Amino acid sequence: MIPIVSIVGKSDSGKTTLIEKIVPELVRRGYRVTTVKHDLHGFEIDREGKNSWRHKQAGAQGVIISSPQKVAFIRDVDKDMSLEELRDSFGRDADLILSEGFKRDVHPKIEVFRKEAHGELLCTKEDKLFAIASNKRFDVGVPCLDLDDVKGIADIIESTFLKGNKTEEITLRVNGRRIPLSPFVRRFLIRTIKGMISSLKGAENPQRLEIKID
Amino acid sequence: MIPIVSIVGKSDSGKTTLIEKIVPELVRRGYRVTTVKHDLHGFEIDREGKNSWRHKQAGAQGVIISSPQKVAFIRDVDKDMSLEELRDSFGRDADLILSEGFKRDVHPKIEVFRKEAHGELLCTKEDKLFAIASNKRFDVGVPCLDLDDVKGIADIIESTFLKGNKTEEITLRVNGRRIPLSPFVRRFLIRTIKGMISSLKGAENPQRLEIKID
Repeated sequence: MIPIVSIVGKSDSGKTTLIEKIVPELVRRGYRVTTVKHDLHGFEIDREGKNSWRHKQAGAQGVIISSPQKVAFIRDVDKDMSLEELRDSFGRDADLILSEGFKRDVHPKIEVFRKEAHGELLCTKEDKLFAIASNKRFDVGVPCLDLDDVKGIADIIESTFLKGNKTEEITLRVNGRRIPLSPFVRRFLIRTIKGMISSLKGAENPQRLEIKID
Repeated sequence: MIPIVSIVGKSDSGKTTLIEKIVPELVRRGYRVTTVKHDLHGFEIDREGKNSWRHKQAGAQGVIISSPQKVAFIRDVDKDMSLEELRDSFGRDADLILSEGFKRDVHPKIEVFRKEAHGELLCTKEDKLFAIASNKRFDVGVPCLDLDDVKGIADIIESTFLKGNKTEEITLRVNGRRIPLSPFVRRFLIRTIKGMISSLKGAENPQRLEIKID
């Protein structure tokens, strides 16, 4: 299961700036990072008049723009997707999903805090706060790192979520709906399916496995 | 397996315009369409200075922008993705993938031809040409429809790819690589996995099924 970490903080606390520092450090260490930004007010990402924009205007639910360097996919949704849904849909090739914001989602959080900007922390341990990046010291039961200690912040993300913490996970979706699985069923399915698949040529050592039937 | 149809034609033949007419007609008939546009020269879809743009500049491999109305995902690639790869990555929720261009891919094609613009057809039956939309009559062994006959063009797409043509398909990806399957193994896996999963609560009638283990 690809880990999700959220960088949270009140507005103007420096979330984007921190992400701009952490991402290159994690990339330097060999990790592939996909970031997530929430945009409450919607966004206009494609340009008016472009072919892909015209496709979308014509009623396409999704539009893919493909080039040799990058791919973009834009699609309509009925409501905000959760970080988990976004990971399931788009996170396939990442080692880490790093979100800016998403305070209300149930994933581990690093809070950015600048004493010049705000008086109080946004999150508590109950919000899954696991570290603070700040120019003020806090004693709230989680590590508090200096805002500029990029290496230290990357270290704590790496040791907590990226190294040796890999547990085998299975996600099952039937007719588009996610099916909850008990620990027993989860273990049973992982072992049965891996066993069956590993007998196929080219699939001898299945670490990551995806099966789609439609 | 979600069908892929390509609208091809020489430059300036009216591919985008035809897509703008077909998409609403298919949507009106209840289908969800995802379109694909190739952009040889790369594209700048995100805006300089935006947070998501800053994430990408910092080295994120992928960036997701999520809003209550739509979601965008931009990621780096090493080389052009095939229509099949794009469908596997992004086509999950569509009934039809409609590409503009992608002449060299191996999928069924409708060629747009305007006699004012060009002298000869771009594709032959060997290119998987299955229909022509043109203001000139062609007798090359495939249906030739009038450029403005949107209903007729939608009909031929619907009857060929969307109605009663659903065969059960399975895609298996191990450690990120697609594993080719013989018809026997395909049938065996579809039946075994569907049988096993259908005994789970909430999964009694698995039509579409996705399993991820990582």
